[in-house]
Order: sequence, then structure tokens, then C-alpha cells
Amino acid sequence: MITESLQINEKGHLAIGGIDTLFLTEKYGTPLYVMDEDQIRKNCKSYVNAINDYYDGYGMIAYASKAFNCKAMCGIIKDENMGIDVVSGGELYTAKLVGFPAEKIVFHGNNKTPNELIMAIEYGVGRIVVDNIFELKLLDKLAAAANKKINIMLRIKPGVDAHTHDFIRTGQIDSKFGFALETGEAMDAVEQSLKTENLNLSGLHCHIGSQIFDIEPFCHASEIMLNFMCDIREKFGFTVKELNMGGGFGIKYIKENDPPSYTNFVKDIIATIKTTCKKKQFDLPFLIFEPGRSIVGEAGITLYTIGAIKEIPNIRTYISVDGGMCDNPRYALYKADYTFTVANRANEEKTNKVTIAGKCCESGDILGENIMLQNVEIGDTLAVMSTGAYNYAMSSNYNRNLTPPVIMIKDSKDRIVIKGQTYEDIVRNDI
Amino acid sequence: MITESLQINEKGHLAIGGIDTLFLTEKYGTPLYVMDEDQIRKNCKSYVNAINDYYDGYGMIAYASKAFNCKAMCGIIKDENMGIDVVSGGELYTAKLVGFPAEKIVFHGNNKTPNELIMAIEYGVGRIVVDNIFELKLLDKLAAAANKKINIMLRIKPGVDAHTHDFIRTGQIDSKFGFALETGEAMDAVEQSLKTENLNLSGLHCHIGSQIFDIEPFCHASEIMLNFMCDIREKFGFTVKELNMGGGFGIKYIKENDPPSYTNFVKDIIATIKTTCKKKQFDLPFLIFEPGRSIVGEAGITLYTIGAIKEIPNIRTYISVDGGMCDNPRYALYKADYTFTVANRANEEKTNKVTIAGKCCESGDILGENIMLQNVEIGDTLAVMSTGAYNYAMSSNYNRNLTPPVIMIKDSKDRIVIKGQTYEDIVRNDI
Repeated sequence: MITESLQINEKGHLAIGGIDTLFLTEKYGTPLYVMDEDQIRKNCKSYVNAINDYYDGYGMIAYASKAFNCKAMCGIIKDENMGIDVVSGGELYTAKLVGFPAEKIVFHGNNKTPNELIMAIEYGVGRIVVDNIFELKLLDKLAAAANKKINIMLRIKPGVDAHTHDFIRTGQIDSKFGFALETGEAMDAVEQSLKTENLNLSGLHCHIGSQIFDIEPFCHASEIMLNFMCDIREKFGFTVKELNMGGGFGIKYIKENDPPSYTNFVKDIIATIKTTCKKKQFDLPFLIFEPGRSIVGEAGITLYTIGAIKEIPNIRTYISVDGGMCDNPRYALYKADYTFTVANRANEEKTNKVTIAGKCCESGDILGENIMLQNVEIGDTLAVMSTGAYNYAMSSNYNRNLTPPVIMIKDSKDRIVIKGQTYEDIVRNDI
Repeated sequence: MITESLQINEKGHLAIGGIDTLFLTEKYGTPLYVMDEDQIRKNCKSYVNAINDYYDGYGMIAYASKAFNCKAMCGIIKDENMGIDVVSGGELYTAKLVGFPAEKIVFHGNNKTPNELIMAIEYGVGRIVVDNIFELKLLDKLAAAANKKINIMLRIKPGVDAHTHDFIRTGQIDSKFGFALETGEAMDAVEQSLKTENLNLSGLHCHIGSQIFDIEPFCHASEIMLNFMCDIREKFGFTVKELNMGGGFGIKYIKENDPPSYTNFVKDIIATIKTTCKKKQFDLPFLIFEPGRSIVGEAGITLYTIGAIKEIPNIRTYISVDGGMCDNPRYALYKADYTFTVANRANEEKTNKVTIAGKCCESGDILGENIMLQNVEIGDTLAVMSTGAYNYAMSSNYNRNLTPPVIMIKDSKDRIVIKGQTYEDIVRNDI
């Protein structure tokens, strides 16, 4: 199977976390998001253990919750003693609801609103990652008004090209995020941070992109960041104590994807950091990583019912499912690859090339093109793998379709963590 | 101004429907969707009058509500004595809530679920547009179970290329929608429809694409459809009485867009239909059009607050706003063009080339690239024009950002038609 959470059971059905997916669709209906909580926790522990084993625990794994944020997920991360990365008032609000320790929250964003910053200050968020000079000034003012000293990190563009999709490459200079190193903008930002009265420059942050399989760009970026920290020490006599290397570690969507283990990601980056610090006689910084996709992505699947099959001779066969771009817009947005299987025929061979279409009234509502699939019949259950990240998170009510429920499996028991929408939900704010 | 609804008032501010946009942002905050109800009703009347003037009123304009569906909008369409096109249980549910006359509802979709079809049968929806042969059989069975005779239309692919974006071109043979003419599939579907016991084949439907500026492809498609109706008469001695030409009429997003008037769209297509019917001695069919975008698109704008300005020397300047792909994913999805203006400097010249970035933590969260804009300062209000269609409808809670409220302006008075989400809404279904 493409991911660890999946099995084929004795009935020849797809199972997740030991539970037959057909049992789940019967119990909860389709479309259905299912996540393997055991796998999520295992992924969390891989990262946390790597920091413990290779860096004496002098760091923090902050889950990038934009990949999948809800109360249950914030609870799991809290339970695993990790930090959390939030990017909006809504994500912060959700973390607050489960009593997430404020000092372990990292707040990101290229354009946090004044209200979001006030919310972060009031809750006592541990690190606010400042993206631009306007935000620096605004935050200093808001901190003064609240009579608080705020720990900030500065988001730096290290200029590293991570060889990934244009839209998800963020470390290069032409990005809406952060301060560029090469133009001197980053050094100016440090200088201005040090001059503020209410902000404490605790660290630097960078994020070089998403769904990256090479460790080398991360190592390269960490070297650049440490060199910059040395330049700051030299120029201002000030030591920046924390380094936040962001996230972006790749996951397995299709069998051609071959990401290194998360342990190796962390281990190799740490090796570079140790070497560089030794060479430069720089104290090892407190180290933060922000994995999101790699915590939840492979742990999730989506289940649909097949409702129509349309063979267009010599062109293609469309298989229509009862969801689509409303619950998973990633193909429409990025032509994202996924692995598909017919859950009730998981042990049969994939002999047919098909296109998977959603139910939205839009030609672009496609989940995959030229996909190899088993023979199918109307009423079969289609499973899409590795949908744990950026699927529920990006879902919409396009066509006024309802957002499906999210189920988690733990110790071979299923439970609802997000209720499916009802029609009442759809019109709740209509006047 | 790019659309009729907009003015520049004596303060040099952008106004919509006679109301200063700055008054609106002060009253309701940003981001904010604003729609000019007077303009929407005027657009409705243009279409309805064209059917009355050129076709003796023998037809129906059914608003394609996927463009923008909410209770208020369904109410306006009901009030204008029009029909409505729905594509899901959610849209049908909303129409029902305002007591929309069932016989004026047209139900579309390439994969309506059994529950959606049952809902349509129970409410007595006037026309169900059958997309595929599985649906035909399913609907016949459901109609039998309900002991009802159901009026259906068949969705036909006329094979017309409407010269538009790949993702929104739907009349060609390689589409997930409908029955192809050229393969004989459409004629088979007619035959099978006539054999059913509980379905009444009332008409044929086609939809050749979206955002189309040429009338000619519509005329061409109408000729193809009528020829097919004549073929059906010849083959089965059965006269199909209704022709639904769908929608897809283009609107003005940028000044280079030059759509014909809606009156001319309807008038020219009707001229072709009359000529063809006369030539073929075919009684004029009851005629349906399904405009969506052209009813609401130009009537809407979105207002944002500018929160950051980032100049990257020799590369570009990013202007960040407090919304983005969460309230308008159309640039991320289609690289859609929009016209922008600084609402509080609407009378100043646009001298700067900028890129408009949203607040989502994603590099692809852009609303427009290389946009000419006035000089801006933090706190200015940015207006995006022609956002009435497929903006609220496609909005998401990505990054757990809140969906903004929708305001309508009628007779120079503003009112909320969809309340803005609260943080409580975001976690409502979280367990």
C-alpha cells in the first residue's frame, strides 16, 4: 500500500488503521474523510524523538496546523507536548479552545490583521513571526498598548530554490513572504527590531517551500541562516538564540514519490547546523521545525461513492464521485497527484485507465486524470489516498455542497472529530 | 468605470449603487462582499424582456444559482418571476426555503446523488436534467417508488467549441457532462427515455461553456440541437417541446472584455432558432436560458484593507490585503483577470504596477499580477470589481479564515444578506 495506515483485509476491502472502509461508509455515508490517529501520533513522535536524539531535545516541533486544524487535532498536538504553528485568528482561536499552552504557539502570516495580533498578544503567544516592516511597527505599538514585551522571530527569505511547484516555493526572493537577505532588507529589519522598545528578537525563521524530497536545500538554507546570525552578532553584538527552519518535508502521494524519513530530514539538517556552529563558534540555537503535511497527509484518506461511469470511445472514461473540488480542490489548483483504489475491490488488479470527476457543475472539477483503476460498478467505493493535509482545510461549499465529516481511527476504534455539515449549516448565515 | 454599478463620488471615493464604499467598510469591516441589487434586477429584466420581446414570452430565464446562491438571491429571482437552476441538494434546499415555485426549478448535475433526486421528486421540481444513462434508470425507479411522473430534459453535448478556458468549456465531446451527439449516445438516451414508464422527456439541454463573448457558437449550437430534435421526430414520431440553451454569456472583468448586451445574445439566438424551425417546419420550442455569471458578476465587488506593501527592487511590489484565495480562489484556479482600484483614491491615476497578494500562508494566494494601481498606503481600501459570481460561491475557510459578509444595495440602502462568519462558526462542527 502507498501509506503505512492502509491494509487490504480478508474480504479484499481497503482498511485503514485496521478498520474496513466499507464499515465506515456504511456507518457514516460518503463522502467521508478518514484519518488514522495512530499514524498521526507516530509521525509526531518521529519528529520529537529526532530532536531528542540528535539535538539533546533543545528545540520544538511546532505542527503547521494550516494543513489540518480542528479542535481534535489541536488536542492531539497538545497531548504530544509539541508546539503549534497558527496562521490566522481562526487557527489561534481553535488552539485556545483546547487550552493549548500559549508559549508553544508560533503565529505566522504575511498580513496578520491588527485584531489577530491583539488576539495573539492577549493570549500570550510565545513567538510572533514578523513578516514585514509595517507589521514590526504595528506590533511594537500594540505591545506598548498592552504593556507587554513580545517575543518575535523575523521571517527571512534565504534565497534557496527548493525545486518544487511555483505556487508552493517560498524561499526565493520573489515571494510575498518575509525579508530578503540579499537586498539588505533582512539586516535592516534586524536593526529596527533591536531598536523597538516592546519586542524581543528571539529568533529567525525561514520556509523554503512545500512537498520537498531533497534534504540538501534545507541544509543549505540552515547554513545561510546561521551565517546571517553570525553577521548579526558581528554587526550588533547581539546573539539571536533561536532558529526556526519551517517545514515543507515531502510525503508520498504516489508510488513515484520517495521522501526521506522524517528522522533523516531532521538528523541531516541538525548535522549541518552543528558543523556550521562549530566552525563559526556560535552557540547551538534553540531549533524549531514546522511540519504540517508530513504529520497528517499520509494518515488521511477520502472515501466516495461512484455514481456514474461515462465511456467516451477513443477518448476517455469518466468515473464520477459524490464529492470533488469542493472537498479536494488540489487537482484543480495544482494538478496534484493522488493514488486511487476501489475500496471494495482493493485486491483486484488495476487494469483500466480512467479520469475521476467530481459532482460540481464545472468541467475542471476533476480529482485525477489517466488513473489506473480496477473494474468499477455504480455504487462502488472509491478511496483517494494521502488526503489528510490541505483537503478538509481547503474545502468549500461550492455548489452549496456539504462538507463531509472527518473520522479518526485510534486503537482500531472510529469516532467523529468534525461533524458533517447539514443543509441547516449551509443557510445558517443567510438572512 | 468598468461596470454600471460603480461611480466615483464627490470625495473621490469609489461608490456602488450610490453608496460610498468607505462608508460600507466603516460600517461592516473588511473583507466585504458588496452587491448592487438594482443592477441584479436590471440584468434579470434584460433577459426576461428579451424573451418577451423577441419570442412572445414563450420561454423562461432560469438563473444559474451556482454563481451566487443564498436565501436573499433566491428571493430576488422568485420576485422577478424567473426560473432557477440548481445543481445540488444545498441549492435546492435554499430555493425551497424561500418558497420558490417548484415547477420553475431546473435541477442539473453530472452526478446527482439518490438523496438529491428524491429531494427533487418530493418537492416537485419542474425539470430534472438527466446527465447519463445510470441517472435515467435511477430516476425512473425513484419516480416509480414515489408514484410520480417526472419531467426530464437530456443534457446533450452538441460538440461546439466555444473558444474559452479549457476548464470551463463543456460543450465538446471530451466532457464529464451529458450525452454526445456524434457517437449516437444522445439518440440512444432519447430512445431509452421514451421507453421509461415514469419519465416524460420534455426537452433537451446543452451548455457550451462559460464567459463566452461570441454569439455565433450559441447560434450554431441551437441549430445543432434543433436538427437533433427534427431527427428525433423523424425517428420516433415524438416531438421534443422544450429547448434549454444553458448559459455562459460573458461579462466584463477587465476593460478588454467586450461582451454583447444580454438582449443581443438572446435576440440573435432566437433569430437562428426561428429560421431553423421555419426551414424544418418544426414548432417553436419553449425556450430556456440559464444565465448565472451575467446576472450577478458585474453587480458585485469585494473590498479589502491593505495591510502590507513589499517592494522587491527590480522584481515587483506586493500589496497584501486582508482576504485572498479563501474569499476569491479564481486567480489561483484560472489566473482570472480582475480590475482593481484603491477605493479611497479612486479619482487618482493608476501609475504603479503591483501584485496583489492575499493573507493565506501560500505563495499562490495571489489576486492579480502586474496590476496598474494608484499610489497606496497601509490602511487604504482596495476594491476588486466584478466579483459577484463565483466568489462567495467558491469561498473556503482555508487557514481558518472567516468568510466575509455579503451586503446588498437597493434604492441606495445597504443591508446584510449573508452574515459574516464568526470564530464560533468555524468550530461549530468540531468535536
